[in-house]
Amino acid sequence: MIVKERFFSFTRDEIAFTTESGYTFDEVQVAYETYGSLNEDKDNAILVLHALSGDAHAAGFYTPQDAKPGWWDPMIGPGRALDTEKFYVICSNVLGGCRGTTGPTSLNPAIGKPYGISFPSINIRDMVRLQKVLLDHLGVKKLKLAIGGSMGGMQALEWAVTFPDFVEAVVPIATTHKLSPLAIAFNYLGIKAIENDPEWRDGDYLEYGQPAKGLSLARMIGTITYKSDELFKRRFDRAINPDTGLFQVESYLDHHGESFVRRFDANTYLYLVRAMNEHDISKPYGSLERTIRRIRSRVLMIGIDTDMLYFPDDMRNFIRRLNTAGGYGEYKEIKSCQGHDAFLIDFDQLSPIVKEFLEGTEEILDSGRNFSDYNQSFRNNI
Amino acid sequence: MIVKERFFSFTRDEIAFTTESGYTFDEVQVAYETYGSLNEDKDNAILVLHALSGDAHAAGFYTPQDAKPGWWDPMIGPGRALDTEKFYVICSNVLGGCRGTTGPTSLNPAIGKPYGISFPSINIRDMVRLQKVLLDHLGVKKLKLAIGGSMGGMQALEWAVTFPDFVEAVVPIATTHKLSPLAIAFNYLGIKAIENDPEWRDGDYLEYGQPAKGLSLARMIGTITYKSDELFKRRFDRAINPDTGLFQVESYLDHHGESFVRRFDANTYLYLVRAMNEHDISKPYGSLERTIRRIRSRVLMIGIDTDMLYFPDDMRNFIRRLNTAGGYGEYKEIKSCQGHDAFLIDFDQLSPIVKEFLEGTEEILDSGRNFSDYNQSFRNNI
Repeated sequence: MIVKERFFSFTRDEIAFTTESGYTFDEVQVAYETYGSLNEDKDNAILVLHALSGDAHAAGFYTPQDAKPGWWDPMIGPGRALDTEKFYVICSNVLGGCRGTTGPTSLNPAIGKPYGISFPSINIRDMVRLQKVLLDHLGVKKLKLAIGGSMGGMQALEWAVTFPDFVEAVVPIATTHKLSPLAIAFNYLGIKAIENDPEWRDGDYLEYGQPAKGLSLARMIGTITYKSDELFKRRFDRAINPDTGLFQVESYLDHHGESFVRRFDANTYLYLVRAMNEHDISKPYGSLERTIRRIRSRVLMIGIDTDMLYFPDDMRNFIRRLNTAGGYGEYKEIKSCQGHDAFLIDFDQLSPIVKEFLEGTEEILDSGRNFSDYNQSFRNNI
Repeated sequence: MIVKERFFSFTRDEIAFTTESGYTFDEVQVAYETYGSLNEDKDNAILVLHALSGDAHAAGFYTPQDAKPGWWDPMIGPGRALDTEKFYVICSNVLGGCRGTTGPTSLNPAIGKPYGISFPSINIRDMVRLQKVLLDHLGVKKLKLAIGGSMGGMQALEWAVTFPDFVEAVVPIATTHKLSPLAIAFNYLGIKAIENDPEWRDGDYLEYGQPAKGLSLARMIGTITYKSDELFKRRFDRAINPDTGLFQVESYLDHHGESFVRRFDANTYLYLVRAMNEHDISKPYGSLERTIRRIRSRVLMIGIDTDMLYFPDDMRNFIRRLNTAGGYGEYKEIKSCQGHDAFLIDFDQLSPIVKEFLEGTEEILDSGRNFSDYNQSFRNNI
């Protein structure tokens, strides 16, 4: 599948997009890709939502020479779980990102130089609201599905709360409606690693180069928490890297840190990590119960048994509360040694789960039943 | 209990102490404390072994005005698990430490300034061998018990392998015979945090002051891995600190990092963490089976169910292998929300386990039975 990166730009005069922190952008650009075609009723769209370090390039190749396809390629294409013969699949880079959508590295037209840390504070709802602007621009009338893992899963769930009538189903994977203090703590380490680096220059480094050591260390911290001890034992155990004299696992972390610096911006990392830390889906509505009662979508949460950051128990609890409040929630679990990153790797488990869920949703809707009737059968089965 | 810090010093002429890396010290000092009295047969000694950030001050107060007693005070004293009315309890700061025993901050007499990173590479066996020198100096003929958690547990187990006839029983807690790659990876983050700090000055910082930001971050990384999500949820959840505007868990980490800089040396941290990473109890003996067959002590390993670094399963496996090889191993588990640090906190569980084990060991020996007979009863019960 050969795909193309696209951009949607608008000025303040065309659309005044204001963050919840109160900042209205003079100009906004959204980088996105689409796979498949929008149908006549404009209601066959699926929105794929990327994680912290992801981008709009979810599937396919830009050129036949590309070494690697998009980050969720095995999920997206003809006959795949997100079947591009049936669905119009869309993925965009998040607000605040550094991969084509307006973020800290973008030019601030008001000052004639990049925002850097003068970029406004953003949150997960801002990301979702900008995605809605993009979908309106593309003419999408309804989402069949919003799906994503980790930070992408936070957005998927937020879609169901912010635009309850626009989205039929959501699949938040390896994620949460609010980070646990352990995940906040790990993210804080990454923030400190970057801010401690003198090359960060209080965020004003763009003309000098990245705070490479700090950003690399932040990524190394993240990388450990996205994996598992079992995986490290299988891959490295205590083997020594003959080139570096370090443990293989140490060289592996160095490599991940260094390559991240080449493709990701340090301030962007700070903005996105803070957006994750501060996200609490119930903030605008007072209580989680009131928030949950807004949801009309069918919800499938998928956990990963070895996830160090997003615990299956917490996800199961969320689904129980959703169902107690009259919602339509299911929970499935991936068994994997990959840890949190399993949602980017274990497609043999993920694909059939998502496929079955999508087919089930269509079957219910085609039969004229509503989720509420259907839901009785599995409500107490979590 | 009022206690006193003591020092034992010797020169190369008196005792030539050589590290496994081949360095012979001109002078060595060992900081230690003792609680209780050595009996006439000089065989009632218990050696307490501290963890990475610990020291020789395991119990009691230096003055009645002290805010806090030693780090394992609830375990040590009259009538406590390590009963000072029966036992002569000894704790010393490890080789390479910064709390009174020769380490990177000590004066290197050959160059007239502190070692810094010219300190020789040291390992867990070196620590144990220096403890043996101290015990010889104190006239101890036999250890009833060597006990400790984390890095202290690595030493306790090493005691059973290096000096099999000198130690009747060992209790390694929340520890391992070799670190798993996950624990190595977390330790490596701490190493990078320090070495990334320009104030570290390639290790040559002693006349300028500590690499405070790097050492603080290293401690913050460690602190998370010593705790648990459940603990953080109970203590902080997502509450905000009114003074800092940060999440409470973030301010808590900052506080732990900053206070660590005031009491611990960065190079010492690097030396001890590397000693832990590189430790593999079987290294001198080729295979774990051959190593394990050296052990004559009764071994009680104690795991913690929420430990993020030292997994109960790995400890249980070690004990199974020990018993298969004809050893005398038992495994007990502390159930706690405290994570790895439970061995420094959950004394209500730890004390009775250790007390019962010590009494059991004495009972077996007093009855003239040997561990081998006794062991049959629990060998297959792990």
